[in-house]
Amino acid sequence: MSLPNTRTARLASWSSTLRYTDLPDAAVQRTKDLFLDWLGCTIAGRHHPAVRAIVNFAKTMGPTTGKSELVDGDLAPFSRTSPAFAALVNGAASHVVEQDDLHNRSITHPATVIFPAALAVAQDVGADGQEFITACVVGYEVGCRVGAYLGKSHYENFHSTATAGILGVAAAAAHLLKLDPAQTLSAIGTAGTQAAGLWQFLLDAAHSKQVHTGKACFDGIFAAYSARDGLLGTKDVIEGPRGMGNGLVPGKTMPEAIDADLGKDYEVLHSSFKWHASCRHTHPSVDALLALMSKKGVRFEDIDSILVPTYQAALNVLGMSGDCETVHQSKFSMGFVLAIAAKKGQAMITDFTEADLKDESIREFQRRVAMVFDREIDDAFPERWTGRVVVTTKDGREIEERTGFAKGDPEFTLTRAELETKARSLAKYGGITDGNKVEALIQRAWNLENETDLHGFVF
Amino acid sequence: MSLPNTRTARLASWSSTLRYTDLPDAAVQRTKDLFLDWLGCTIAGRHHPAVRAIVNFAKTMGPTTGKSELVDGDLAPFSRTSPAFAALVNGAASHVVEQDDLHNRSITHPATVIFPAALAVAQDVGADGQEFITACVVGYEVGCRVGAYLGKSHYENFHSTATAGILGVAAAAAHLLKLDPAQTLSAIGTAGTQAAGLWQFLLDAAHSKQVHTGKACFDGIFAAYSARDGLLGTKDVIEGPRGMGNGLVPGKTMPEAIDADLGKDYEVLHSSFKWHASCRHTHPSVDALLALMSKKGVRFEDIDSILVPTYQAALNVLGMSGDCETVHQSKFSMGFVLAIAAKKGQAMITDFTEADLKDESIREFQRRVAMVFDREIDDAFPERWTGRVVVTTKDGREIEERTGFAKGDPEFTLTRAELETKARSLAKYGGITDGNKVEALIQRAWNLENETDLHGFVF
Repeated sequence: MSLPNTRTARLASWSSTLRYTDLPDAAVQRTKDLFLDWLGCTIAGRHHPAVRAIVNFAKTMGPTTGKSELVDGDLAPFSRTSPAFAALVNGAASHVVEQDDLHNRSITHPATVIFPAALAVAQDVGADGQEFITACVVGYEVGCRVGAYLGKSHYENFHSTATAGILGVAAAAAHLLKLDPAQTLSAIGTAGTQAAGLWQFLLDAAHSKQVHTGKACFDGIFAAYSARDGLLGTKDVIEGPRGMGNGLVPGKTMPEAIDADLGKDYEVLHSSFKWHASCRHTHPSVDALLALMSKKGVRFEDIDSILVPTYQAALNVLGMSGDCETVHQSKFSMGFVLAIAAKKGQAMITDFTEADLKDESIREFQRRVAMVFDREIDDAFPERWTGRVVVTTKDGREIEERTGFAKGDPEFTLTRAELETKARSLAKYGGITDGNKVEALIQRAWNLENETDLHGFVF
Repeated sequence: MSLPNTRTARLASWSSTLRYTDLPDAAVQRTKDLFLDWLGCTIAGRHHPAVRAIVNFAKTMGPTTGKSELVDGDLAPFSRTSPAFAALVNGAASHVVEQDDLHNRSITHPATVIFPAALAVAQDVGADGQEFITACVVGYEVGCRVGAYLGKSHYENFHSTATAGILGVAAAAAHLLKLDPAQTLSAIGTAGTQAAGLWQFLLDAAHSKQVHTGKACFDGIFAAYSARDGLLGTKDVIEGPRGMGNGLVPGKTMPEAIDADLGKDYEVLHSSFKWHASCRHTHPSVDALLALMSKKGVRFEDIDSILVPTYQAALNVLGMSGDCETVHQSKFSMGFVLAIAAKKGQAMITDFTEADLKDESIREFQRRVAMVFDREIDDAFPERWTGRVVVTTKDGREIEERTGFAKGDPEFTLTRAELETKARSLAKYGGITDGNKVEALIQRAWNLENETDLHGFVF
C-alpha cells in the first residue's frame, strides 16, 4: 500500500523504519536517563487511590497471567498480565508524584505514557534493550511532535500528555510489533481518534490525571495491536478536516512540528527532568526564588510578598488549584510551592506533607504570592520556560530575579549521580526498603542497550 | 458525601435512584423493542474486519473466561470474557450495518453503546431483566441528554454516539453496580474525561466507527467499576470551565437538556428505528422519494435528476463519502442511496451489494443527485428530520415531495411484527441459519422483564 503524501504519513514511515544503529549515542544515553527516572516515579506513585482502583480494574477485567509485568512487586500474586493492562497500571502510577519528565515545546510528560507502554509490549514480544530503546525514541518523537502541533490553545482544555501521548504510544508499540509504515499509520490514526483528557479534574482534585496516562497507554496499545490485525485507522488523523487539529485545537496549530527535520534531532534530548516535586509550571519561579534568596541572603521570614510574572498556561493550570485541600493540589499552587521552597530551601518529594497543609506560616506566605501575566515570557513559551520573581522584603526592598531555564532542563540536565539520588528518594517514598534491589535496577538501566530480556524491572 | 448543586449532579442522582417500578409501561416495552433491534444489528455486523481485529485484541489482552458473553456464538471457545471486553466486541459489532437506532435530538445511536455495556455488566453482576431494563433506560437518558447538550456544532467534528454515549454507558453500569449518587457522579466524570471519537475516518473508509462504539463501552465500564473502587471522577465534567462543553463544543450547548423534566419523559421513547440500511441522514429523503414515486407513478428510468434540499449536518457527513469505493461508503452517499431506493423500491440491508457498486445505471443516477442547504429544514434539525426531494423527470416535469418524519421515527414507529422481520433479516445477513434459535431469542426479548438470568443472548 502506498502512503499518502502527508506529514503524518512521513512521520509514520520514519517511525516504522528507524533502527537502533541510526541513533546517536546521546539519544541512547538520554533515553536510559529518562527510563530510570520513569521507573522511580512509577514505584513512588503506587499507593495512590487512583492506582489502587485501576489495579482492581485490571484484576477484574484483565488476565491475571501474561508476559508483561507490574512494576509494583507487592501486587503479587497479580504480578503479570497482558501488555495493555500492565501499561495501564504502570502508566497510572508513574504520573502521581509530579516528578516525571516534561518536554517543553509540546507541554507533555512523555515518559509516563511512552515507557510503560513500550516496556509492556517489549516484554510481550520478547524485545531486547536496543529494540526497546529504539521504540522509546520513536514514541517520544511522535508524541512530542504531535503535542507541539496541538500547541498552547489545545493545552488550555486538554491534558496533552494523554492526547498527544497516545499517538506516541501507538508508534512505539507499532515499532516493537514490527508493523510496516502503512500499518503504523493505521495505528496512529486509531490512536488519534481516541485522544481524550480534560483539565476539569484539577478543579476538584479528582483522580483523572492517572486515568489519562494509564488509558493513553492502554488505548495506544489497542491501536497498534488492532492495526497489526487488520483494523484500518484513518490516514490523516492529525491534520485532516475532521481530525485532531480541527476538533481539538481552538487556536493555532504548528504543522511543521509533525515532520520537520526527522532524524536530524531527537525529542528525547529536549525533555526536562523535574528536580522539584511540584507542578512543572512552578519550577522556573522556584529556581528564580531560590537563586534570589541565595544570592541576596534573603530568608523565609524576611519576605513580605512575591509577584510572579508568568505565561498564560501557568495562570490557567495553577489558577485551578483552589484552596489546596490536598497535598496533590498544594503542588499546583504557586503560593504554596514558593512558600515550601522558601521555608525548606528545596521542594523535593518529601517536602510536601499533610503537616505543611496545616502550617499557618506557610499558608500565610502562600496568600502573599500573586501571579501576573507577562507578555514577553508568554511569547517565549513553551519553547522557553522563563522564571521571574519580584520579592518585596519586610524592610521595604524590592528585589528581582530571572532564570532562563530550570534545573533539569536540557540546557542544565541532571547528572547521572543526581538521577540516581532522585531514583533512590523516589523508591524510598514508594516504601521500598531493599536498597540492593534499587541499586541493581539502577545498574540495569545504565546497561539497558545490552539487556537481552526486559523482564524484572520490578521493585 | 453531599452532591453539588449542578445539573450533572442532579442527573447522576436521578440515575442512581431510578427504580423499575418508576417506569411507565411504554418505556419498558420500547426498551425491549430497542434491545431486540440491537441484538439483530450485533449479529449482522460480526464479520466486519474491524470486529475481527477487535475480537483478536480481546483474546490477546483480556481473559478468555468470565461471566459476560459474546453475542457471536461462532467465536467459541472464546465465548465468555470479562464485561469490559464482551462489551467492547459486542459494541463494535452492533455499529457495522447502519441499522441501529437513532435518537434525533442528540444525533446519537444509543443502542450500540448502551445495550452491549449493560448486558455485559448485568451478566457479570447477575442482574435480572427488570434491573437490566432500568439500567438501559438510565443509559439512554444520560447518553441522549448529554448528546443534546453537546449539540450540532459538536457533531460536526465528533461521533456523538461515542462522546455522549460513554456517559450513558457509565451511568447504566453504575446503576447495575448499585453505586450511590456520589459514586455515579464520579463514574460520569471519569467517562466524560475519556470522551473521544472524530469523524475523520469517514474520509478514507477507515474502521474507527466500530472503535468508537466498542471503546465507549469499554471505557464507560472502566469509569463505573473504578468509581466503585474509589477512583474519584471530576464532578462537573459536562458544564465545568475545563469540561466537555468548553473543550469539545465550538458552538452552542443546550444546558437545560441535562436535567429538565427528569423522570417525566423518557429518551427511550424518542429513539427512532432504522428501516432503510443506509446512513440515517439519507432516510428522510429516501422516504420522500419513495412516496413521490408511488404517488405519481414515477419509475427509476423516468428520473432525470434530483435536488435534495437538506440540513447542514447531512451535507457534512454525506459530503465525506467520496467516490463510494466500498459498500459501507455507498450507504453514506445521498446519490447512491436514492439510486438504490429508486431502482429496487427499498433500501434494505440486502439491497447494497458489491454488484451495485459496479452497476452503471446506479452510478449514472448517483451523479444526477445534488444536495443543497435548506435554511428552514436546518432550523428544525435535529428535533425534526425533514425529507424533501425535487425530482425532474426526463419528460421535463418538476415534482416535489416532503416528509415530516421518517418510517421508524417515534411518531411512526415500527410494529413488533416489523421489528421481528427486521431481526430475522439481520440474523440472516449475519449468516445465522438456525431459525429456531432466532425465534427463541425474539421471544426472550419480548419477555425480558420476567427473565431472571440474562445469559444466553447468543446466536
